[in-house]
Amino acid sequence: MKGKIGLEEHFAIEETLQDSAGFLPEVYWKELSHRLIDIHDTRLREMDAHGMEMMLLSLNAPTVQAIPDPKKADEIARRANDYLAEQVAKRPDRFQGLAALPMQDPDLAARELQRCVRDLGFKGVLVNGFSQVREEISAVYYDLPQYWPFWAEVEKLDMPFYLHPRNPLPSMAPIYDGHPWLLGPTWAFAQETAVHALRMMASGLFDQYPKLDIILGHLGEGLPYNMWRIDNRNGWAKAPPRYPAKKKLCEYFQANFYLTTSGNFRTQTLIDAILEIGADRILFSTDWPFENVDHAADWFDTTSISEADRVKIGRTNAIDLFKLNLDRT
Amino acid sequence: MKGKIGLEEHFAIEETLQDSAGFLPEVYWKELSHRLIDIHDTRLREMDAHGMEMMLLSLNAPTVQAIPDPKKADEIARRANDYLAEQVAKRPDRFQGLAALPMQDPDLAARELQRCVRDLGFKGVLVNGFSQVREEISAVYYDLPQYWPFWAEVEKLDMPFYLHPRNPLPSMAPIYDGHPWLLGPTWAFAQETAVHALRMMASGLFDQYPKLDIILGHLGEGLPYNMWRIDNRNGWAKAPPRYPAKKKLCEYFQANFYLTTSGNFRTQTLIDAILEIGADRILFSTDWPFENVDHAADWFDTTSISEADRVKIGRTNAIDLFKLNLDRT
Amino acid sequence: MKGKIGLEEHFAIEETLQDSAGFLPEVYWKELSHRLIDIHDTRLREMDAHGMEMMLLSLNAPTVQAIPDPKKADEIARRANDYLAEQVAKRPDRFQGLAALPMQDPDLAARELQRCVRDLGFKGVLVNGFSQVREEISAVYYDLPQYWPFWAEVEKLDMPFYLHPRNPLPSMAPIYDGHPWLLGPTWAFAQETAVHALRMMASGLFDQYPKLDIILGHLGEGLPYNMWRIDNRNGWAKAPPRYPAKKKLCEYFQANFYLTTSGNFRTQTLIDAILEIGADRILFSTDWPFENVDHAADWFDTTSISEADRVKIGRTNAIDLFKLNLDRT
Amino acid sequence: MKGKIGLEEHFAIEETLQDSAGFLPEVYWKELSHRLIDIHDTRLREMDAHGMEMMLLSLNAPTVQAIPDPKKADEIARRANDYLAEQVAKRPDRFQGLAALPMQDPDLAARELQRCVRDLGFKGVLVNGFSQVREEISAVYYDLPQYWPFWAEVEKLDMPFYLHPRNPLPSMAPIYDGHPWLLGPTWAFAQETAVHALRMMASGLFDQYPKLDIILGHLGEGLPYNMWRIDNRNGWAKAPPRYPAKKKLCEYFQANFYLTTSGNFRTQTLIDAILEIGADRILFSTDWPFENVDHAADWFDTTSISEADRVKIGRTNAIDLFKLNLDRT
Ligand SMILES: [Zn+2]
Ligand SMILES: [Zn+2]
Ligand SMILES: [Zn+2]
Ligand SMILES: [Zn+2]
Repeated sequence: MKGKIGLEEHFAIEETLQDSAGFLPEVYWKELSHRLIDIHDTRLREMDAHGMEMMLLSLNAPTVQAIPDPKKADEIARRANDYLAEQVAKRPDRFQGLAALPMQDPDLAARELQRCVRDLGFKGVLVNGFSQVREEISAVYYDLPQYWPFWAEVEKLDMPFYLHPRNPLPSMAPIYDGHPWLLGPTWAFAQETAVHALRMMASGLFDQYPKLDIILGHLGEGLPYNMWRIDNRNGWAKAPPRYPAKKKLCEYFQANFYLTTSGNFRTQTLIDAILEIGADRILFSTDWPFENVDHAADWFDTTSISEADRVKIGRTNAIDLFKLNLDRT
Repeated sequence: MKGKIGLEEHFAIEETLQDSAGFLPEVYWKELSHRLIDIHDTRLREMDAHGMEMMLLSLNAPTVQAIPDPKKADEIARRANDYLAEQVAKRPDRFQGLAALPMQDPDLAARELQRCVRDLGFKGVLVNGFSQVREEISAVYYDLPQYWPFWAEVEKLDMPFYLHPRNPLPSMAPIYDGHPWLLGPTWAFAQETAVHALRMMASGLFDQYPKLDIILGHLGEGLPYNMWRIDNRNGWAKAPPRYPAKKKLCEYFQANFYLTTSGNFRTQTLIDAILEIGADRILFSTDWPFENVDHAADWFDTTSISEADRVKIGRTNAIDLFKLNLDRT
Repeated sequence: MKGKIGLEEHFAIEETLQDSAGFLPEVYWKELSHRLIDIHDTRLREMDAHGMEMMLLSLNAPTVQAIPDPKKADEIARRANDYLAEQVAKRPDRFQGLAALPMQDPDLAARELQRCVRDLGFKGVLVNGFSQVREEISAVYYDLPQYWPFWAEVEKLDMPFYLHPRNPLPSMAPIYDGHPWLLGPTWAFAQETAVHALRMMASGLFDQYPKLDIILGHLGEGLPYNMWRIDNRNGWAKAPPRYPAKKKLCEYFQANFYLTTSGNFRTQTLIDAILEIGADRILFSTDWPFENVDHAADWFDTTSISEADRVKIGRTNAIDLFKLNLDRT
Repeated sequence: MKGKIGLEEHFAIEETLQDSAGFLPEVYWKELSHRLIDIHDTRLREMDAHGMEMMLLSLNAPTVQAIPDPKKADEIARRANDYLAEQVAKRPDRFQGLAALPMQDPDLAARELQRCVRDLGFKGVLVNGFSQVREEISAVYYDLPQYWPFWAEVEKLDMPFYLHPRNPLPSMAPIYDGHPWLLGPTWAFAQETAVHALRMMASGLFDQYPKLDIILGHLGEGLPYNMWRIDNRNGWAKAPPRYPAKKKLCEYFQANFYLTTSGNFRTQTLIDAILEIGADRILFSTDWPFENVDHAADWFDTTSISEADRVKIGRTNAIDLFKLNLDRT
């Protein structure tokens, strides 16, 4: 289909480029680093060739979240956001921006968010999982109480928040020891992000801020397949769950979450996602430049769903969620 | 349907009973502990009432795997296996046994397996995830080299091996800190077991012992939903994967793994599993006594699959896999 | 779920009651005839008990369509519509009306439609398949040219049109000779209605009147399962189809048709329909009194689709399509 | 995948070639007639190019079934069968034969079947729907009592019977008048064949000959989508069905029928079929030369099902059903 919109589409600035080294063998670094730095050349050609009208751009990972010093994190976030705004300004018909935020300091994060919305015209946020705060060996998740004022601001500004994966710190996930190939998109990304999302659901965050819209990539980081079990376990024991949230976790999943197809171009998985969360909450994305636009697009354009859902997932859901200034047809 | 067979069905002996405390609120302990100790009373009545002809029984979790001293682990395993053999002998038409094994010492484990097969007539193995070996704070996974002779024996004896979940040690999974409700069946079980299975696939174990049959509960601990992504990541980079195994991980998943429905009574999830691994590799189970037989059976008897697949998943796949002495119809 | 709306829900007036005899064994006639005549008693109780807020009522079948004399057909249609309007007036919060129309005379039909919309406040039309026109042995389908001015009126008035089944005349479908059990809901209804719908698609009707909304019951009378084959046949021969319509038939199916669940309470079938036409074009219905409200509702309330789609199919799609004066939540 | 086997793969002899004219525009006749006459050239090249190891060949349609004179029908059937046997003998590794039978005379049909099995080594039967018997305007279906001795012979010889479509006689299906494009694979084939199959189920034939294996093409001619409704209709009325057969029709469908993918290369439809009848009863086929081998194979090789089911549907189910002398791997 033509007119597709993607929302997990990354770029790098010079200061963050090296964060993406190591995900692929050395031999691919030249190509990958070019793809990350490029905005208006290869990227646009790929989009043109495969029916993508727009990318909502976001900084690569983990970058800002992996800078323990809040000031430095803020500085890099601002630099990336400023750069992104300039690029968007050149082709607002093809690119829009998602803000990078220095989550190390919830207050700084809220202020940078305000700036991104008011001054830069960004459409949402993309944050790369937990933040290392002040110490290298730290992993701070955003369900914690210190983040709730930040979430109040996100809700007030009505900004969709993309919770993007990052790897766990090695010392915090010894289960992968000796198996580095299980890190990254193979598996660890999904575990990190799914648990982060579950923490947010269980914490009561969405009771307090029910209008928050959280986006998960990769068709939901495994959550849809187990969402029923998450709530059911030991179904005969009728005791209420012990977490602070008031409802079953699947109710928040269904009310506050959106999923994208980034990096998970599997029809069976997409069908399962549709049967769990419905096509109104699924959106096309590629995960460029880590995945190819053609791989994503060729699959999506022919995957075995209804044409009505293809249009929604490929385009109109994104227009509605991000209030994009694009025709729905 | 009548004649269902379940293969994740637990019991406890006095020495292991307390391992199951804490999974449920105190108020349910009386019921749960009764269910665990009971074999021929409540359990059989539940089976009769809901069309289960047979349970392949296994010890509760984590029990043997959580006893760092190999000798002590062996002692408990032997005691549990002996007790189980006695119970099976009373009703071999309704119960068969899966061996508990002291995986702390691969050699002891192999010897106890031989004993269980030759002397006790057990049909397979059920092990509760990683073992703590010699120290409390240790987690040893079975892809490691020291276990390969053990796997040779499992293959030689042609014994299906059920890789059952356990929780991570708290210090090894700080991601759950402050969120104890994410442990156990809610989420942590799946992560533990899925990664353990992936480690085995990536290690090359199944290249060496291609006839191993590994069983995962809970419709595959989340693996089917992401199995494509696990192999695909960064599809444009054509570099071979860096793990020792020779094939794509999904090939081992499709050739060496079976899934059960234990504790995951969700039709959408079952359909996805069928579309990923096929109905010949899916088997009914309840996860008694942590889940109810009626919850499992009422769902399974009406879930939206073909009647042919219902018979296979409910009964004949188990007869074939475990070479049970039961009619196929 | 609460608040369900049904749109294939029948009643009879005295003059049409006998049309429903013979569908069921004699022993059920007392119950069936009571159900058909009743509006505010059993029917409302069933609705209350099973979460149906509203029924869009329509006359039983084949009735008006089986009266060859156009004047007489018009007379019965008017009588039924007047009676229906009275009943709706008593409980407009629970019932709304779909017009019966004397399709024997397109001009009379258009006029009665106008009257039903303007004077009676009806929300749409339900017609029972082809009409016998002037002769008993005649079957006139609505793709024929004489009906196009009528369709212009339907489009202008923006009235959804439910194409309800009827049986073929025996002399026109000798394939069922000796097998009367294949008539009615078992099979012949679907063939009649599917072909009628295909005739409309192929005729070019929807090129001329692209805003027409046609509703099919029984999850589409078999069309979704074969819709791809309908357009594909002999795919290597690139010749354009020989029918007058400008597009592939599936494009009209996707753009001009809605399906209801009436009398087809099958999860597998519903999933296939969702994957072909999307959940926005599927609507709950029971086919009362020929099917039970509880059979339809108990199935629908638990069928394996997302909760978001359940709300759309169960309620909000109907509110949107018929512009019902009900809250969307 | 390699090693695919197809079982709805047609050829013509000179005497039957013209039966296939008219299905496609004149401009395609040269190509189509070449494809029908050819066995060892284009056909084998297509098979080689797209991973088909074997075709079970059958005569084109309607041919023998459309010859009212039983003797003449028998003569043509014998000639076609002899010719087919010669072709198979040249490449028994790539082709096997399905018998054409003069169903106009059940006794002649049984004798020709015996000859085909004993003398020609054929693996099954393919018959093109109802037969015109003695008069042009006649349509005789095989559920009728005169055919039961023939079915006894089919069961005794253990020969799978492919019930292939043909068009209705125009005078017997006036519903298509003015819409010739609804004939053939677009729609009429499915209606003819589905009703023929339902007549056989309802007649009690499978109570008498429970080992009969009937094959339907085109993923079941629409039956799986409505199979539940076929048995359910008016579920609240508990009266037993009025047909002679002893069980619900779906029970025969599940026990006596197989489906092929011929001409219906639609993933959604295949998934629905799997969820209704199970992958053990679905078999790959192309419908060559009316459909392309590449269209069938390219779709099937990538359609969204498990690899285990792909092997069964693509190859091993056919080996088992027809007892083919091929390796299962
Ligand atoms: Zn990404
Ligand atoms: Zn268990
Ligand atoms: Zn109806
Ligand atoms: Zn054919």
